[in-house]
Amino acid sequence: MTDTITLTGLVATDPKHLTTGEGLSITSFRLASTQRRYDRSKQSWVDGDTNWYTVTAFRRLATNVSVSLVKGQRVLISGRMRVREWADGQRKGISVEVEAESIGHDLLWGTSSFTRSIAASR
Amino acid sequence: MTDTITLTGLVATDPKHLTTGEGLSITSFRLASTQRRYDRSKQSWVDGDTNWYTVTAFRRLATNVSVSLVKGQRVLISGRMRVREWADGQRKGISVEVEAESIGHDLLWGTSSFTRSIAASR
Amino acid sequence: MTDTITLTGLVATDPKHLTTGEGLSITSFRLASTQRRYDRSKQSWVDGDTNWYTVTAFRRLATNVSVSLVKGQRVLISGRMRVREWADGQRKGISVEVEAESIGHDLLWGTSSFTRSIAASR
Amino acid sequence: MTDTITLTGLVATDPKHLTTGEGLSITSFRLASTQRRYDRSKQSWVDGDTNWYTVTAFRRLATNVSVSLVKGQRVLISGRMRVREWADGQRKGISVEVEAESIGHDLLWGTSSFTRSIAASR
Repeated sequence: MTDTITLTGLVATDPKHLTTGEGLSITSFRLASTQRRYDRSKQSWVDGDTNWYTVTAFRRLATNVSVSLVKGQRVLISGRMRVREWADGQRKGISVEVEAESIGHDLLWGTSSFTRSIAASR
Repeated sequence: MTDTITLTGLVATDPKHLTTGEGLSITSFRLASTQRRYDRSKQSWVDGDTNWYTVTAFRRLATNVSVSLVKGQRVLISGRMRVREWADGQRKGISVEVEAESIGHDLLWGTSSFTRSIAASR
Repeated sequence: MTDTITLTGLVATDPKHLTTGEGLSITSFRLASTQRRYDRSKQSWVDGDTNWYTVTAFRRLATNVSVSLVKGQRVLISGRMRVREWADGQRKGISVEVEAESIGHDLLWGTSSFTRSIAASR
Repeated sequence: MTDTITLTGLVATDPKHLTTGEGLSITSFRLASTQRRYDRSKQSWVDGDTNWYTVTAFRRLATNVSVSLVKGQRVLISGRMRVREWADGQRKGISVEVEAESIGHDLLWGTSSFTRSIAASR
């Protein structure tokens, strides 16, 4: 179960959807997750630093995300961290990706209406 | 951060909403979370045992849940476990509750349309 | 990944170890996990309510737990929730169990010395 | 609770310990977390990709980690992700850090002996 993470945050870019030559559906977007912390001097909760993640969904989750999520919305995500080093000629860096297993609009921030696309048998 | 849990599963009862005399909004429902496991003999994923939780939401999350969720829908929940022993005369037992921090329709199973109810300033 | 949980707390009973007729090693103990919360009136962190879990380990984790953990020690646990209803004649109830995947002495509370029992090849 | 993560893996560098001018104790090391996945063609679990994290501990956890952990040991960690962009002249990149809340030797891989350093009053 290692490397699993649950995130709440803001959809910071419009989700990009593509289908590979093999027919695999992929959707990705940037997520801004701002941590809240209690400021004792102000005696109130304040925004802390922001973590930025690239969130990627595959298959039917990708398809549903691409028609449901819009930049600026609040979401809840569970998934698996992927921290990878990359190199492109002389440039190199680290990519931080979350491969999503479930995503939903966060009802802490609004209401949502759901349309099931998978048969109810399970 | 201890005792936090992330769950996906089926809304197994219609959410019940109430407002206390002090004006606190509370919504609760039963969640059935069925674990999937890989069956080597069948070489496929099969349903494992089902965990049952009482999920409780407070304040604005409670209000939004009560107008958004319907029995039979698939959801994603992050929250905090509350395992409590209770006694009522000669009867006693254990209650297993999840105090939800975020809830959303699980886009693995369908699409959703979101209406924000909180100002976008944060 | 659903139903996974991470807990920190106190080993509240001495671990009980047994080996089944089939040779399966099983160790279990009770864990008290006390949540901390910020009390604004006192302007300090205070103990909140306590969750009680039965923690169960299998195979080599069970063996290592049985020789390492003692009642009263602080531990960190990751595992999977199992919430089950049981009936025994006219009595019935709910059991709340965590099937542990990893357990360690929590270095927040002391120091530990480790002896590897598995070959280092992975 | 957002951005919390639980990791198991290998301590890949000897922990570095320092004390700031203000007396704050800090320890950090690199963690290699290798995900296991089920390979259907081989019908067995195999190593997947490896995530690399910088793990940082503060205060008494830092002190205990510095005298307990050695490169090559297996550990369990719970903490909070910190994904930060940095720039240093013309170079820039992303740092991926986990601020640890609890760390322990993973009893899945061996046994450990614990010495408490904090009074047992809580």
